[in-house]
Amino acid sequence: MVTDDDIAFAGRLADAAGKIALRYFRTAVAVDDKADESPVTIADRGAEQAMREMIARERPQDGIIGEEFGKERAGASRVWVLDPIDGTKSFISGRPMFGTLVSLAIDGVPQLGVIDCSAVGERWVGVKGRRTTHRLADGTTKDVRVRACPELKLATLYCSSPLMFKDQFPAFERVREKVKLPMYGGDCYAYGLVASGFADLDIEAGLQIYDYAAVAPVIEGAGGTMTDWRGKPLDLSSDGRVIAAGDKRTHAAALALLAG
Amino acid sequence: MVTDDDIAFAGRLADAAGKIALRYFRTAVAVDDKADESPVTIADRGAEQAMREMIARERPQDGIIGEEFGKERAGASRVWVLDPIDGTKSFISGRPMFGTLVSLAIDGVPQLGVIDCSAVGERWVGVKGRRTTHRLADGTTKDVRVRACPELKLATLYCSSPLMFKDQFPAFERVREKVKLPMYGGDCYAYGLVASGFADLDIEAGLQIYDYAAVAPVIEGAGGTMTDWRGKPLDLSSDGRVIAAGDKRTHAAALALLAG
Repeated sequence: MVTDDDIAFAGRLADAAGKIALRYFRTAVAVDDKADESPVTIADRGAEQAMREMIARERPQDGIIGEEFGKERAGASRVWVLDPIDGTKSFISGRPMFGTLVSLAIDGVPQLGVIDCSAVGERWVGVKGRRTTHRLADGTTKDVRVRACPELKLATLYCSSPLMFKDQFPAFERVREKVKLPMYGGDCYAYGLVASGFADLDIEAGLQIYDYAAVAPVIEGAGGTMTDWRGKPLDLSSDGRVIAAGDKRTHAAALALLAG
Repeated sequence: MVTDDDIAFAGRLADAAGKIALRYFRTAVAVDDKADESPVTIADRGAEQAMREMIARERPQDGIIGEEFGKERAGASRVWVLDPIDGTKSFISGRPMFGTLVSLAIDGVPQLGVIDCSAVGERWVGVKGRRTTHRLADGTTKDVRVRACPELKLATLYCSSPLMFKDQFPAFERVREKVKLPMYGGDCYAYGLVASGFADLDIEAGLQIYDYAAVAPVIEGAGGTMTDWRGKPLDLSSDGRVIAAGDKRTHAAALALLAG
């Protein structure tokens, strides 16, 4: 059971990570710089370290799975799943669509998720059993809801990059060819667009647990569906192919095409 | 010759257009809404109309080429080239990477360009013979400069969508396969990233004059190069295939691959 305290704590974790990320965002480096550590590496590690220290201090019993420093007490009932900078390629190239992902998984199932896009000042928070919220750059927060999309031919589809699909590219293309508006370059921001009802689908592949654990509660708390490509709910052992959909009908239609 | 007055006026045109764009951005509509006019259409027309009225009032002798309402006195020596919302697909799907493009072409050559990304509060201004400036969301403005990128294999490449290239896709792919970091989903913001030295290349196709007229002065005023795919400087009669590069060496290498 996710508590108000958990939600506030997850928000503080994202605050701490975002502050460090922004300190290094658009720190210019030459393309042929041979420095051992790039700004994104320093920011990624620094942001995760800050979050890990807060968890060690305030939630010493909880487990941690983080992108940069791996697992710690991962068998605990409550595990924090951390991606300090999701969308590192956007971060590197100066595009403000990256974000920090914070999730609390309870008994293996992500039940709280924060998508915090610090460079544009927006944050989505999803909690099992509650309505997803979206905090805008002006500081206002509102409940959000996915939109209806009865047919694939009406759908707006996001993906981060067509190159991410590798062997699964033909499967992705089967869906892409059927939608109304295929969009590229999503990063975690695009999941927020699905939750807020501005896009209908986000299909990704090759993800790690920390890339999607925070996203499922955001999508589901807005009335959407997020599963793997076979329609299975996401848990800590999913295979990294995910689909987030606003409308169950679009989800079903896309799954059928992904299956071939 | 572009005057300080021209620059201030171009800024006021972008202010007016951005204000109208933001009024309609993320105005939710159902995907199967049968309304005659979508929010983006209303915003596009309203923003261009506002700019046209300002030009008619303050610069009655000047010509206008606009995306929505076409040409007016296009044979004048000074012609304002207007794209009220560049990146309409981003606008429609709630992604804040769209922008207003304003250019002043003198005797057929774009000499002043404004890329105004109102949803993130950033603006690039380029003027022939001056250094390009970048105004950030916090209101600070700084001069920007492209970065060095001696080789294609070190380059970050942006394009708006892989689907925009149609018959030219193989040519684009020849470049894409050689770069270090291919990025998708740029819209006009990506040109700003090249000008500011966070990306090295932006390659697009199928553009109209109002999609690129404002961009060339921004790229060139930052020390970069912008041409068509054959290396010809852009003017009002270019064929809509454009390449913006920070470093002349990357530009030359990409042109060679585009040519086949």
